[in-house]
Amino acid sequence: MIAAEGNRLSHIANGQIRTDAKDPLPRRLVLLHDMLCDVLVTHDPASAAVEEVFVNDNPQSTLKLGQARGVVLLAAAGRGIDVAEYAARFVKKAVVGVGNADKVQVHAMVGRLLPGVKITGADSADALAVAITHAHHLATARAMKGAA
Amino acid sequence: MIAAEGNRLSHIANGQIRTDAKDPLPRRLVLLHDMLCDVLVTHDPASAAVEEVFVNDNPQSTLKLGQARGVVLLAAAGRGIDVAEYAARFVKKAVVGVGNADKVQVHAMVGRLLPGVKITGADSADALAVAITHAHHLATARAMKGAA
Repeated sequence: MIAAEGNRLSHIANGQIRTDAKDPLPRRLVLLHDMLCDVLVTHDPASAAVEEVFVNDNPQSTLKLGQARGVVLLAAAGRGIDVAEYAARFVKKAVVGVGNADKVQVHAMVGRLLPGVKITGADSADALAVAITHAHHLATARAMKGAA
Repeated sequence: MIAAEGNRLSHIANGQIRTDAKDPLPRRLVLLHDMLCDVLVTHDPASAAVEEVFVNDNPQSTLKLGQARGVVLLAAAGRGIDVAEYAARFVKKAVVGVGNADKVQVHAMVGRLLPGVKITGADSADALAVAITHAHHLATARAMKGAA
């Protein structure tokens, strides 16, 4: 969760939702949905963004990821929040400057763009990078609209 | 949706939820969730069952299916309804008697097991077959518990 005023970005919150792998899948999906809805209620964001899925060669992993992702998209859209999608390469290019940046570079650049942020893990750094990309994208779209 | 009293099954409702493929995915997931919740509120089932996913070779299809499936599981589990899963082969074996039964055979046998049913389509026939399988499974589990 970040705030954007013009070109100035600031950190609001970051984190990862974890559920117990021993719980049945439907129960884990309910927890994921409830915890994400809590975050959305607390911070009431104007828009949201997710990473485009890179479908890999393991169909069982793709199915699992899809089930969790469906619930995430539902949580946002159910509150009327638009959800943008960005490919991982696009995010790395936007934040670090190169599409094949590694996790350490993304983490470091997110720290520089959001002064004072305490990043809770690699997935949180990736999520903040998606948020930064989305903010840039919206600012650019507004600027182009203003110039037209 | 079926009712089961002892070994006697009866039809309550069947149908298919369709969303517009031109709508954005998050919107379609919200509609799927809302319409399924309406059905669950109307009929207030004691338990639910879904077909186990047969993941195919197309990762994009698996991802799409997963996203919809996550929302379906959430809708049931969010109301405290347990969701059982059955492999398609197991369902065909339970309903028709052979694991490689075709759609026509499943449709015909569902019609025989639920007298008076009007089946709204092939997917509805499959869904009713899963419900019948689940009812049999629960009845057998109860009988075995009684015998023990």
